[in-house]
Amino acid sequence: MIYFDNSATTKPDPNVLDSFIKVTQDFYGNPSSMHDLGKNAETLLRKAREQIANLLSVSNDEIIFTSGGTEGNNLAIKGIALQHQARGKHIITTQVEHPSVLLACEALEELGFQVTYLPVDNYGRISIEELENSITNETILVSVMYVNNEIGTIQPIEEIAAITNKYPKLFFHVDAVQAYGKIPINLNIDGIDFSTLSGHKIHGLKGTGLLYIKNGTILFPLLHGGGQEMKVRSGTENVAGIVALAKAMRIQLDHLNEDQKSLVEMKSELLRAIEKIDGTVVNTPTENAAPHIINFSIPRLKPEVVIHALEEHGIYISTKSACASKSPDKSSVLVACQKNDEVSRSGLRISLAYSNTLEEIKYFNQKLALVVNQLRKGIR
Amino acid sequence: MIYFDNSATTKPDPNVLDSFIKVTQDFYGNPSSMHDLGKNAETLLRKAREQIANLLSVSNDEIIFTSGGTEGNNLAIKGIALQHQARGKHIITTQVEHPSVLLACEALEELGFQVTYLPVDNYGRISIEELENSITNETILVSVMYVNNEIGTIQPIEEIAAITNKYPKLFFHVDAVQAYGKIPINLNIDGIDFSTLSGHKIHGLKGTGLLYIKNGTILFPLLHGGGQEMKVRSGTENVAGIVALAKAMRIQLDHLNEDQKSLVEMKSELLRAIEKIDGTVVNTPTENAAPHIINFSIPRLKPEVVIHALEEHGIYISTKSACASKSPDKSSVLVACQKNDEVSRSGLRISLAYSNTLEEIKYFNQKLALVVNQLRKGIR
Repeated sequence: MIYFDNSATTKPDPNVLDSFIKVTQDFYGNPSSMHDLGKNAETLLRKAREQIANLLSVSNDEIIFTSGGTEGNNLAIKGIALQHQARGKHIITTQVEHPSVLLACEALEELGFQVTYLPVDNYGRISIEELENSITNETILVSVMYVNNEIGTIQPIEEIAAITNKYPKLFFHVDAVQAYGKIPINLNIDGIDFSTLSGHKIHGLKGTGLLYIKNGTILFPLLHGGGQEMKVRSGTENVAGIVALAKAMRIQLDHLNEDQKSLVEMKSELLRAIEKIDGTVVNTPTENAAPHIINFSIPRLKPEVVIHALEEHGIYISTKSACASKSPDKSSVLVACQKNDEVSRSGLRISLAYSNTLEEIKYFNQKLALVVNQLRKGIR
Repeated sequence: MIYFDNSATTKPDPNVLDSFIKVTQDFYGNPSSMHDLGKNAETLLRKAREQIANLLSVSNDEIIFTSGGTEGNNLAIKGIALQHQARGKHIITTQVEHPSVLLACEALEELGFQVTYLPVDNYGRISIEELENSITNETILVSVMYVNNEIGTIQPIEEIAAITNKYPKLFFHVDAVQAYGKIPINLNIDGIDFSTLSGHKIHGLKGTGLLYIKNGTILFPLLHGGGQEMKVRSGTENVAGIVALAKAMRIQLDHLNEDQKSLVEMKSELLRAIEKIDGTVVNTPTENAAPHIINFSIPRLKPEVVIHALEEHGIYISTKSACASKSPDKSSVLVACQKNDEVSRSGLRISLAYSNTLEEIKYFNQKLALVVNQLRKGIR
């Protein structure tokens, strides 16, 4: 099996699962309990938080554990909006965000907020000037993703942070779900107030994630209750999942430091082969793009047909993002990049992990050429 | 070790953990993915939903998976409030709810809602008349727990449902976290619109739970995004956790059917011994109470001192709810029951699981008498 759908979800690392199992069996106490079983669980939780804070070069109390990327994005966006609406009710985001950002923003529109959805260029990048021009006295939040989940574009996060940093009442949220461990990122810079990570995109477990919250920033919690997670996110902590997240993050960061070249090589090899196939359009930009996502279109071939044909060779790729894959029709990201209808309708996404190999890429390249050929000839 | 803090959290059942491990290893696809790995995960998810719907005698599409009890309670309460505020902005709940209900309601007060917190009698029960008298034209939601987490009182849920059922615009939410598997409950009755369950209270895993939503009831989602869970709760589904939840629920229900008598016996044995100790006050009512929670006070002994003394004998019990255990001072539940200051300050909670034994109870009873005696004599 060749699994190239790692931006949808990843195979959990056996070491990560082992951590989860160990904690579940031996440290099942409620961290809020007063007795030793509770304290032992709390100690593990504190250590996991410390490890993660170290990995991200931020403070322990800036890490809030969540149930995943969707919760992190919703918590940052709605949390700022509901808490700080007296300051203004305008939010700026982009047309190419993950559905959890776009739909959280649309939900806030229902509650009376105004949202600017910034357009992007052909490569999926926003314009810094346009962003700055969109800021009004009413703007309280800017939310821009680090790496686009469908085409891999890296947004100019540090430049945006330099701008948001000039406006004291403006918060900046970065959805870094597709960036962590794939490109070097620095969340601890002036101007970035929040950043979302997800466990299951980095060989961790589903139902785990975190929101980095710059010290002292007050959010309206989505989940009120026992006051866990610095009162920002109540609910008994999933200690085993959190320890597993810390493990997954460390492993992923080690790979970034040691193996990023292999991702880059695999991507080049893929692109070379894809471009050789007559009529294909590569949607992933050549510059400012993450090394693990390759998006391309084969006009006039239905992407689901290509996917299922590749599946017969044991190869798993995707169309657009998993979270949008069941709505048929065009990719809204490719539409925002001003791709024509045919290209927007026929996008395919390969998303790599460090565990993929050049051999897999070569096998894939052969099979892709074969499948496209067969489909075009109507053999399939 | 004798673990009597099962209302804080439970030891995960090895079979539950095995299910989680198997699904994590073999079915890691994203249920939203178009390929077979995705479809296989989606099939598992659908089966788990069916199993759970069967266990609860409700329909498949009435089950929404969450990250736990706190999320379920927040989703029901805030989801109704935000979605249906045009109908009215008044909510009725009780003074003895779990913090995730109380603080969700307080948060809504910040957003302009009015909340009535019904008082309770000495036994922790609300008055049906008082509830009905509190309903106004503005009331959109009643939220009452099935079993109180600190003292075990069972609220008159079916009587409340009969009332809420008379008011077409009124929704009724039942926090059943401490009830499921401990007393027979029927959620599928007219008048009940939502009910919250949690995995880790029934030997499932932390980070898992569900909200039962009566068919067709529209909620404002807390988590917007990919549209998972009938668009009520977006985010990649924690398939392994959900399968584990189904397993935990089935096991727990089997115990309820076969072993409830053993819980009742253990409780009687405990109460007999506790009442023998001079000066103890039993706070758990004799009628309308769940079989697994025993709350009592030993006036003039600090509960944390008793807890730590018992811990030296390998016994784990708690003071109030884990979610409130770190705020010192009185139990707000005992205060609501009009217990005096000393009793409210010195409450202790024993919470049983089916895996506890009469031998453990007898050992505990000896050690409790010993510890109280030593503490009163100042030996400790």
